[in-house]
Amino acid sequence: MPNGFWDRILWVDLNTGVVEVRSLGEKAWRSYIGGSGLATRIFADLGGEASDPLGPDNPLIFMTGPLTGTQTPMAGRHQVVTKSPLTGIFGEADAGGAFGHTLKRAGYDGIVFLGQSAEPVYLLINEERAELRPAEDLWGLDVYETDERLRASLGSAYVTAAIGPAGEKLVRLAGIICDGRHARANARCGVGAVMGSKKLKAIAVNGNKRCPVAREDELRESVAKGARYLAANTKMMRAYGTAGGLQAMEALGDVPIQNWRMGLWNEGTAKLSGQRMAETILTGRYYCRGCVIGCGREVEIKEGKYAGVKGAGPEYESIATLGTLCLVDDLEAVAAANEFCNRYGLDTISTGSAIAFAMELYEHGLLTTQDTGGLELNWGNADALVELVRQIGEKRGLGELLGRGVRAAAEEIGGLALEFAVHTKGLEFPAHDPRAYNSVGLGYATSNRGACHLQGFTHQFEKAVTMPEIGFPEIQDRFGLERKGELVARAQDLMCLMDSLKLCKFSLGGGLKVTHMVEWLNLVTGWSMSIEEFLLAGERIFNLKRVLNVKCGVSRKDDTLPPRILTLKRAEGGAATNLPPLNQLLSEYYAVRGWDEFGRPQSETLQRLGLA
Amino acid sequence: MPNGFWDRILWVDLNTGVVEVRSLGEKAWRSYIGGSGLATRIFADLGGEASDPLGPDNPLIFMTGPLTGTQTPMAGRHQVVTKSPLTGIFGEADAGGAFGHTLKRAGYDGIVFLGQSAEPVYLLINEERAELRPAEDLWGLDVYETDERLRASLGSAYVTAAIGPAGEKLVRLAGIICDGRHARANARCGVGAVMGSKKLKAIAVNGNKRCPVAREDELRESVAKGARYLAANTKMMRAYGTAGGLQAMEALGDVPIQNWRMGLWNEGTAKLSGQRMAETILTGRYYCRGCVIGCGREVEIKEGKYAGVKGAGPEYESIATLGTLCLVDDLEAVAAANEFCNRYGLDTISTGSAIAFAMELYEHGLLTTQDTGGLELNWGNADALVELVRQIGEKRGLGELLGRGVRAAAEEIGGLALEFAVHTKGLEFPAHDPRAYNSVGLGYATSNRGACHLQGFTHQFEKAVTMPEIGFPEIQDRFGLERKGELVARAQDLMCLMDSLKLCKFSLGGGLKVTHMVEWLNLVTGWSMSIEEFLLAGERIFNLKRVLNVKCGVSRKDDTLPPRILTLKRAEGGAATNLPPLNQLLSEYYAVRGWDEFGRPQSETLQRLGLA
Repeated sequence: MPNGFWDRILWVDLNTGVVEVRSLGEKAWRSYIGGSGLATRIFADLGGEASDPLGPDNPLIFMTGPLTGTQTPMAGRHQVVTKSPLTGIFGEADAGGAFGHTLKRAGYDGIVFLGQSAEPVYLLINEERAELRPAEDLWGLDVYETDERLRASLGSAYVTAAIGPAGEKLVRLAGIICDGRHARANARCGVGAVMGSKKLKAIAVNGNKRCPVAREDELRESVAKGARYLAANTKMMRAYGTAGGLQAMEALGDVPIQNWRMGLWNEGTAKLSGQRMAETILTGRYYCRGCVIGCGREVEIKEGKYAGVKGAGPEYESIATLGTLCLVDDLEAVAAANEFCNRYGLDTISTGSAIAFAMELYEHGLLTTQDTGGLELNWGNADALVELVRQIGEKRGLGELLGRGVRAAAEEIGGLALEFAVHTKGLEFPAHDPRAYNSVGLGYATSNRGACHLQGFTHQFEKAVTMPEIGFPEIQDRFGLERKGELVARAQDLMCLMDSLKLCKFSLGGGLKVTHMVEWLNLVTGWSMSIEEFLLAGERIFNLKRVLNVKCGVSRKDDTLPPRILTLKRAEGGAATNLPPLNQLLSEYYAVRGWDEFGRPQSETLQRLGLA
Repeated sequence: MPNGFWDRILWVDLNTGVVEVRSLGEKAWRSYIGGSGLATRIFADLGGEASDPLGPDNPLIFMTGPLTGTQTPMAGRHQVVTKSPLTGIFGEADAGGAFGHTLKRAGYDGIVFLGQSAEPVYLLINEERAELRPAEDLWGLDVYETDERLRASLGSAYVTAAIGPAGEKLVRLAGIICDGRHARANARCGVGAVMGSKKLKAIAVNGNKRCPVAREDELRESVAKGARYLAANTKMMRAYGTAGGLQAMEALGDVPIQNWRMGLWNEGTAKLSGQRMAETILTGRYYCRGCVIGCGREVEIKEGKYAGVKGAGPEYESIATLGTLCLVDDLEAVAAANEFCNRYGLDTISTGSAIAFAMELYEHGLLTTQDTGGLELNWGNADALVELVRQIGEKRGLGELLGRGVRAAAEEIGGLALEFAVHTKGLEFPAHDPRAYNSVGLGYATSNRGACHLQGFTHQFEKAVTMPEIGFPEIQDRFGLERKGELVARAQDLMCLMDSLKLCKFSLGGGLKVTHMVEWLNLVTGWSMSIEEFLLAGERIFNLKRVLNVKCGVSRKDDTLPPRILTLKRAEGGAATNLPPLNQLLSEYYAVRGWDEFGRPQSETLQRLGLA
């Protein structure tokens, strides 16, 4: 085996309790890199796409990348791959923090869970020792409590990934939260509900092994230079977190407001910015392992009705979905809602989206105080926001309905409710508006896990980032039409690679190029991979996910956006009147991808990628 | 009461067998004109939109217009309004022929059927005498047989409207066929199934009353001039029927081929043209009552496997949906399929669409010979075409599924089948491609009965027709974007008026303008209606239908087109690569209409139209 991998994957059968170590061989790693790619390959080999998402046959796979656990900066991440109970198709969720780094340092690249335990368990990993332990006493605890309880008994060197009550109760919006109070979430696609269905409360890991690196001196030199450069170019994010750009993004028309209806909310948005947070509740910052930015916010609220909030503060996506999307301009309430999401183990994006959806239902009388148990769901009602997070997390009251996600809730209610459900393929939109960047709508429409900015990240290529190695040496026109199909396809392939290397995408804003990624991968592994081979692996990974989705029934009809986004021009803001030209772009995108008219990879394409 | 109306509507309670005459008063006629408008007003007052389409509470309304039965040319038509069992929303279907003319001449403006008979009946109307009669002996007969049997017993002066076995068996694609072998069909929206659910086999009418006209001499002079002009400008249609333009339309990219995939099919299309028909199976032509064009084709096939076909030949829509859409280039087979549609009482458009849909399922292995009872549904298989028409008409074999319409069939099969179902709001597309005229997609998306060219007819405004009175004194650019929302709204309002006057839309190609319509209406009725009041009535009628649909759950999400039409660029033909810019146009259209962001008429709009 090359360096960079242990080629040791924990294989945990929750039906029998047997824990083994399995190896895949170098070819698998070189073809799928690690992280998202390798986990998807394993998922596909296990036939996960045919499983009932909450049944025993759905694999739940945690996977680090080749750079994770090495001295490479911003690579301390891990991916979770599973079939999504929210969308019914391929699901995955990425997280930073310390969990992935520590897992790798324990001597494992990843973990595959199969089956379902009869009783609650957690997985303990202490380097060579890996065993399932009873978790009766943890079941019912929230994520922060679980983390604290485990580390109190096992030792503070342990790092955890856990579900809260939401995952236990199979809430479709449940995520997996790593690192306790310094929360980093594998948030999306209901991966926490899958973990709950397996009665797996947590993973606790301790590891200090040095991960073997092929050309250590060269790597050290290269990453030192890279780290300095990355740090120098990300000062704003360090100072103000991911929400430091909130107002600048609003000016571009990028921020979703009032369930995607408004284009500007000047004073309201200002109250939620990273700058405002720094002036008020911010107490510090925290870093993912190996990070040079430190976008994590430590916050504390000492007084008032949200007193007691202490730990991870809301980042941009959470501020936008729990805040601007619901017209809630109370930063403390948003911080409290964010903390409850972390404690219950909920995806803030989907949770905030479901609440904004409910507020619009309430505005139109499709929900009344009879349905809400007396709660007045007026736009901007901060108390209602926080209460609904709790109800979703506890699967009670209106939370039972909202916790199924906006697609299912809208289908249940019917009529106008279907107009308010902003999702693609069942996944609620993240907080970047496709009307602000012409490539973003195409990206959301074709992202394999449903609407996702991270799987295309092209808003950056139309704003700040160039990437000559994939054919885009200039920043692209965000309102243009030229080469958008190509941009989205090539950016998605690259994002597959970053999700497989497990590199943080904020490194792109710091100036990281494909050349650096390949250089670091080769220095770590000892390979001499070319940029072409590297990019081909990204295309392979993206197409493998698409093949899985095609097996789940996905086709052209699903590569779409909701009517509000496709047809409703906003009246104001930096992207006023622009609509995503999805229809014009889709066929070009399919052609670039080598897909047929229904969006299925053609056999020549699969052949070329080694997926036949 | 003014002239032009009797203000006598037959009110038939099929539960009790009671037949009455009711009047509405002049205000209703002046506000809703007649035909489609007045029938919709009655339908709304009866709460028809809340009914089960195949239950006793669904009204089935036949209605003539103020010009019907007078010497006005091209007004011998009638409308059927009901709730559609195919689409689940407001439904209507228009027909020419002699039925409406004769009904008016019997001294009635229309007929409202309510309830359901326990046993098969038909309605006999002989001027003052109107009664339900047993129809046990007619039940099970096809339309031609029913017409012949009735006229043999009642006298050849009688004119019939009847359902065939399809309507009896509640096939959702069933229509009502008038005039027997000189078939004219109230085809769309499953109106024949509603008639079948009422156990109403037929209406037979005899009438020779002179319809009172206010200013007879002036009308005679005006229509004589108009008729000469209309006749002079429609020679091509008289010579070759509605399919005389088939090849010219194909050159524009207007003709749907192979379930909307191909843009050109040169030799194939040539074999189906009106010119080819004239050289082969054509034996004569026939006219609707009062028509000066005579687009009706009499055909006869004397030899070969389709020997025995005799009567109405296929018109353009039928040739395109049973022919080009299925890649069937055998004109005799298309004529036979058309005759079976008439005999079974089926909508040729929806039937041809369902068969093309099935052929695409077969191409992709979603239907096999196991499902088809051995039938090989290859594109262009003429025998399969004819056999499937029979199966749909008899609700047997694969016909049971296809007879539910492409939306329901695709939902039943799922997966890729949903890509092949070309409909809006559950109504299969007529044979004009929205990719060939930028306004047409918007028209199909917003037409009140689902995808419909007749309710907007804007392909003509982007090709040949000008209409200064509604603000379009020039032919519009078919690939342009300017004022398309306004064009579609104003053209839809005008089409509502023509469907209420019961004027044939082919008169537009002959040069008929709004000024003539208003002049004739005033000469007939004695009113002094202004063009403004007239056009406002059109807007009122369109909005009333929309209000009914909103009550059925229709909103912005439903004002759309299928993915194939929205996103698939055709490779060849006169509209190659063009896509309907629906998303760009929808909000403009709503604004022109005075609708809110969800497509609901705003209260000021309803107020302005007297619909509050």
